[in-house]
Amino acid sequence: MKLAIDASRLTIELETLATYSDAPAPAVTRVVYSDPDLRARSYVKSLFADAGLAIREDPVGNTFVRWEGSDPTLPAIATGSHIDAIPHAGRYDGTVGVLGGLEAIRALQRSGVRPRRSIELIVFTAEEPTRYGIGCFGSRLLAGVLDPKALSGLDEHRCAAGFQGDVAGVRLPRDHYAAFVELHIEQGPLLERAGVPLGIVTAIAAPATWHITIEGEGGHAGAVLMPDRHDAFCAAAEVVLAVERCANSTAAIDTVGTIGVCNVFPGAVNSIPSGVRLEMDVRDIDLARRDEVLRKIEQCCVDIARRRGVQIRKNVINADAPATCDPAVVNVLADAADSNGLAYQKMVSRAYHDSLFMARIAPTAMLFIPCRAGISHRPDEYASPEGIAAGALVLAEALATLADATA
Amino acid sequence: MKLAIDASRLTIELETLATYSDAPAPAVTRVVYSDPDLRARSYVKSLFADAGLAIREDPVGNTFVRWEGSDPTLPAIATGSHIDAIPHAGRYDGTVGVLGGLEAIRALQRSGVRPRRSIELIVFTAEEPTRYGIGCFGSRLLAGVLDPKALSGLDEHRCAAGFQGDVAGVRLPRDHYAAFVELHIEQGPLLERAGVPLGIVTAIAAPATWHITIEGEGGHAGAVLMPDRHDAFCAAAEVVLAVERCANSTAAIDTVGTIGVCNVFPGAVNSIPSGVRLEMDVRDIDLARRDEVLRKIEQCCVDIARRRGVQIRKNVINADAPATCDPAVVNVLADAADSNGLAYQKMVSRAYHDSLFMARIAPTAMLFIPCRAGISHRPDEYASPEGIAAGALVLAEALATLADATA
Repeated sequence: MKLAIDASRLTIELETLATYSDAPAPAVTRVVYSDPDLRARSYVKSLFADAGLAIREDPVGNTFVRWEGSDPTLPAIATGSHIDAIPHAGRYDGTVGVLGGLEAIRALQRSGVRPRRSIELIVFTAEEPTRYGIGCFGSRLLAGVLDPKALSGLDEHRCAAGFQGDVAGVRLPRDHYAAFVELHIEQGPLLERAGVPLGIVTAIAAPATWHITIEGEGGHAGAVLMPDRHDAFCAAAEVVLAVERCANSTAAIDTVGTIGVCNVFPGAVNSIPSGVRLEMDVRDIDLARRDEVLRKIEQCCVDIARRRGVQIRKNVINADAPATCDPAVVNVLADAADSNGLAYQKMVSRAYHDSLFMARIAPTAMLFIPCRAGISHRPDEYASPEGIAAGALVLAEALATLADATA
Repeated sequence: MKLAIDASRLTIELETLATYSDAPAPAVTRVVYSDPDLRARSYVKSLFADAGLAIREDPVGNTFVRWEGSDPTLPAIATGSHIDAIPHAGRYDGTVGVLGGLEAIRALQRSGVRPRRSIELIVFTAEEPTRYGIGCFGSRLLAGVLDPKALSGLDEHRCAAGFQGDVAGVRLPRDHYAAFVELHIEQGPLLERAGVPLGIVTAIAAPATWHITIEGEGGHAGAVLMPDRHDAFCAAAEVVLAVERCANSTAAIDTVGTIGVCNVFPGAVNSIPSGVRLEMDVRDIDLARRDEVLRKIEQCCVDIARRRGVQIRKNVINADAPATCDPAVVNVLADAADSNGLAYQKMVSRAYHDSLFMARIAPTAMLFIPCRAGISHRPDEYASPEGIAAGALVLAEALATLADATA
């Protein structure tokens, strides 16, 4: 098979997609169902239509783009990713898997092959947790592992965005796809450091997300003496450092813990904080090790609360299990890299992805490309056109193999 | 002199004033130049007009209410406080000094005395630092110790609120008032604990306010490994605990340190914080001791920044000197308490007040009344009608003495 990726067209499309943003360039902010998200959806749908692909949207806006195979009765092969972006993010996270997946399909079309199985490109709704506090809600619903009632305001927001129908109908059966492959930037530094153009993911670390609320006692910052205080923010500071310490305590490089959101109440310079709300993210590729870290953090919270005379409560938003990738799909990716003379290394994904949930209903693997200095979720996130093209090329070949394409 | 305070009228007026708020009752939020602030100003001015008092407003909205003495050429005696309130505050901080001061004047009017010196009631603009980051900007400008250019947006906001004219004209000369007395709730627990109805303030602790910005390195909360991180919020947590530790380190009960404001950037659960902004308040009645605490905090910041590979910068918003009250005015207050059979204790004010700046241009003292459990800057702040009336009574008698009033 002779496949050619149009790297310059793909670059222009990625740059155009980045302009749909609520933050000034180079930052990208594109929260699900926001105006930039809806305009970005229109843009990518126009590209799908240009490629002659059929488009279906489900009740939450997951978008399925289909290139019909010669035997449409067979379960399809799917690829895809997301186009939403957290506040002040970059332009490659998710989008490379959507527009790179589209270019892979176009490359196959141009090559003249005809797949036996249909090939679908999925644009998952809201991989990022910004709006609903939980990541991957589109793919969670597809996999049937999320109660949509847990998402406050979802019905109102999706209807305002033009998506209708019963959310229960989003769920896909286990045999719906014969395989799923997601192309994504690594979001870490390993490929760049190793000088290797491709990573083939064998396991995906899973996050646990807690919302932590701390209730102390407010008061006048001048008048309440230090021994009489129950400052909620001082307690929160100890929680932040405990999360860092517990994540470091496993001595496993794969354990990470982060508190990325903090709201202090009432939030006045001369008022002792009476309440603090934190959002915590802890991940590992080893479920037992991650859950041991969570237990340690919880014990720290109990100790801090008792010592400081404050209340600390946790609300578990999600505590997902890691995923293991399908060995057969991994092998297909490895063969596709080999046949194009591209080196790869097998690796774990420390970021989580829609693949974490697609793995529950389909044989799944992921293909990583390097990103500069491992930087992601920042405006200076960068992947080179050549690197993206290499990923799209191997993805195209793997899709062809999985879909049993013939010239 | 036979003076009678109308406690029930004063209570109703305090309750009415509390209804001008951007937060639901019992909380009061009344930020300078906001709609509730402007409506509250209209309300108190209607009360001043009812009492037959002349009203003057300066270019920033400091309001001067004058009961003309028999010799208007003499420097006047002044009392007063503020009506702005921090977010989610209570109903007595400041307002007791304004409406209690008005009732003191009305009590003098009702008694039939005529003061030789004029008596003025001042409603200071923005004692609270909520809007401009610096407390007491009205009284700072009166005392000539603040460059109005330091207040970003002031001209626009005051003009939109209807206050015009040259801000340079706000400053008052040093001999403008013969004395200034401020009635205020204690905002601490000492009077209530001692069962004493009045406190006469001999010194006012002064705040130092810093804005602290921390710049670390952002990134993906899953993908960036712990040893590679420069998490700005973990550094901020150490700063918060350092401020608490340094304030405790003096072993002097009068040293307090608080961080009441925290903004985390970009503020997403799956994004490592790249930046944090803190607002810090450190106070003491001893200037040298407070400044030693500030030096220790600064050294901690240097250590944290170096150890964590982040940048920590401070912006000194204010670093005021404490004030000593005028012994003669203190004696007048003590005599007024004695002659009404009311016990008092001499004390320091750990909260700061417009008196801190009035002390720079006039012989100044303060009169404290108890507040329940020492609670202030909270919706459950409370002072009893009897306690407020006792304060207004002693204030009235002291004003009469200072103004050389005769029957």
